[in-house]
Amino acid sequence: MDAIEVIRAKRDRGELSTAQIDWVIDAYTGGAVADEQMSALAMAILLNGMNRREIADWTQAMIRSGERMDWSLLDRPTADKHSTGGVGDKITLPLAPVVAACGAYVPQLSGRGLGHTGGTLDKLESIPGWRASLSNDEMLGVLRAAGAVVCAAGSGLAPADKKLYALRDVTGTVESIPLIASSIMSKKIAEGTGSLVLDVKVGSGAFMKTVPAARELAETMVALGTDAGVRTVALLTAMDRPLGRAVGNALEVEESVEVLSGGGPADVVELTVRLAREMLAAAGVSPGKDPAKALEDGSAMDAWRRMISAQGGDPDAVLPRAAETLTVQAPSSGVLARLDAYAVGLAAWRLGAGRARKEDPVSFGAGIVLHAKPGDLVRDGQPLMTLHADETSRFDRALEALEGAYAVGPAAEEHLPLVIDRVTAP
Amino acid sequence: MDAIEVIRAKRDRGELSTAQIDWVIDAYTGGAVADEQMSALAMAILLNGMNRREIADWTQAMIRSGERMDWSLLDRPTADKHSTGGVGDKITLPLAPVVAACGAYVPQLSGRGLGHTGGTLDKLESIPGWRASLSNDEMLGVLRAAGAVVCAAGSGLAPADKKLYALRDVTGTVESIPLIASSIMSKKIAEGTGSLVLDVKVGSGAFMKTVPAARELAETMVALGTDAGVRTVALLTAMDRPLGRAVGNALEVEESVEVLSGGGPADVVELTVRLAREMLAAAGVSPGKDPAKALEDGSAMDAWRRMISAQGGDPDAVLPRAAETLTVQAPSSGVLARLDAYAVGLAAWRLGAGRARKEDPVSFGAGIVLHAKPGDLVRDGQPLMTLHADETSRFDRALEALEGAYAVGPAAEEHLPLVIDRVTAP
Repeated sequence: MDAIEVIRAKRDRGELSTAQIDWVIDAYTGGAVADEQMSALAMAILLNGMNRREIADWTQAMIRSGERMDWSLLDRPTADKHSTGGVGDKITLPLAPVVAACGAYVPQLSGRGLGHTGGTLDKLESIPGWRASLSNDEMLGVLRAAGAVVCAAGSGLAPADKKLYALRDVTGTVESIPLIASSIMSKKIAEGTGSLVLDVKVGSGAFMKTVPAARELAETMVALGTDAGVRTVALLTAMDRPLGRAVGNALEVEESVEVLSGGGPADVVELTVRLAREMLAAAGVSPGKDPAKALEDGSAMDAWRRMISAQGGDPDAVLPRAAETLTVQAPSSGVLARLDAYAVGLAAWRLGAGRARKEDPVSFGAGIVLHAKPGDLVRDGQPLMTLHADETSRFDRALEALEGAYAVGPAAEEHLPLVIDRVTAP
Repeated sequence: MDAIEVIRAKRDRGELSTAQIDWVIDAYTGGAVADEQMSALAMAILLNGMNRREIADWTQAMIRSGERMDWSLLDRPTADKHSTGGVGDKITLPLAPVVAACGAYVPQLSGRGLGHTGGTLDKLESIPGWRASLSNDEMLGVLRAAGAVVCAAGSGLAPADKKLYALRDVTGTVESIPLIASSIMSKKIAEGTGSLVLDVKVGSGAFMKTVPAARELAETMVALGTDAGVRTVALLTAMDRPLGRAVGNALEVEESVEVLSGGGPADVVELTVRLAREMLAAAGVSPGKDPAKALEDGSAMDAWRRMISAQGGDPDAVLPRAAETLTVQAPSSGVLARLDAYAVGLAAWRLGAGRARKEDPVSFGAGIVLHAKPGDLVRDGQPLMTLHADETSRFDRALEALEGAYAVGPAAEEHLPLVIDRVTAP
């Protein structure tokens, strides 16, 4: 078999055989297929697609390129969630301890942010002392102690995906549903979870801009999980406006702690509870406690404190704060008609909350606090949002990103419902 | 500007701007755009196409990546021919001296064979002493002495094309009409010829398998040449069966010498004369002599002997012969109904006439001599062709390639006319 034969088959709209897919993933991981050959293949896949069988084979081949974790010796079912990423999406932080408090183990491997969307690990690293990198034994220890663990994927998990993702990032081949779905699912299946709830974001601040595109991605991933024996369900949720009121690493940890204390923004609470119920149902746990109750009675907060402590963090530590702030005021009185998720994410990124390149550091304190959400009444001159940054020099380009991103008018524009749809295996 | 932006534009079916094309070719030549980025772009171009303006810009950018030759100080017009390659296509060998004998200068840069089609330089190198690599001054000297020179392109001519061609070769991105056309034409325009006749081959032994595909390539190249101020015309010619009776390096030189002596196979003579008339017309030479006359009166042979001698070759030398031969006999009596060009090319290649990789040597003596062409009457057991190789071990795989490639029946199957069509600038 050779790379050109495989590239040509997909280029000419053919179906790749299982043997061709196994060979090309294996040879790429081992170096016998060169980067320039894999990028040509990735472009052909992006433009000509793959069918369900090809995507399943591609995913399995990437899983087989590394180790596969196994939690079958644990005494409770395992449940995990994956979000395709959005602006202000800190849901993992309250969600993992809530689900742990309700009776399932949550062994969650997370990532760092790149571009305008934040990464769960960056957020948690704003807690002094907290460590993202754990050995498999340490991961098991945290899971037993707290019921939930959120950490970085080790290098042994789906190494083919790591190599391919880095390549796609620089060759304009990220935006392919088969490649996105197989990338996400290869890691989640290799992680060994028994059940998985996917939060597929839709809107300007999400990777998928439209409901049909998000639905296609959700259906593809649900099929992949189901075919691999993982009970998988997906929710399509809104990302046309930011989620919650905080965007930025430490700012989002603070908001998550508010939610775990029984308060916090209504949309964050609602989505946390909704996803927790899905996770418990998918894991087959008949909960002694409803997730909403776990937020009220302090049991989720207890799980959170144990989880942070077990990974070296101090749950009572004062979080980093940015040195400089700037307030954006409402330009007139009326209803906040619109607040674009992508623009807010881009502004937060320019304030220092995100990174341009993988090796860049993030500013833990930088970000944006929203004082109004679409539909809220505002008065002329009232603070709409506060920008946080380590240097005042960052404000100009953040304000540029926000130009035209919000508007005050007689009524709110139409927005997506928070939960748009639910996708299950056919 | 960055590579991902350019790749995405073409991936999403956009038109690349002149600035984008200039930047990407320049950055790729200089190394700022990586191979894996260019291969993704090449695949996007292959699948989504380029319009006439984009192809012209792409070609000009490749020309500007290197030097451009200039023959304007010569006292006669310059004419060149390019063939897209076929089986038994030795036309350059008699053609260049014929045109020189009729009054134009022929400064022709040629290539080596790769795959089942032969290369003009490989053929000429079977003549003892003949040198393919000349400096620009040496090239001018041969041109003045003989009226024609056939040599290798120096490394300074369209270096972007050299780098891109090597990349396309290993990434399944060769078969793109915009990329093929710009690759050929960037070299021919940089070579500085005043006029150009393109011989676009059609059929199993050619790169273009169908008349519509060949016509599209021809029209694209004629437009590119015309836009660049080169008087350009194209003929579509048959490559469903081999051209002439000899396939292989020294074997084709022998056949060319027969043609230059006033003999040789009818199809080789006809195509040589037809292309020579086109070249003289495109060059604006009103010939004192018709090309057919130049073959008869020995003036073309004189030009050939001067051209070979001026490049160090001995026109009277005995050519290399393969040590082993095998005769293939007619399986029955009747008409040779079919003789597939691709199969004969592949068999000759397996006999040693061609190379699998650029760095491989060729066997000068290896190849095939055809004793019958489609339409000829044959008797049961009569020799159909003779295979020539340096080792008998090569015969088996050559015979395999010939299985089903020829048939004897009541009448010849339908074949393409030798000259199918003529394409000129609109």
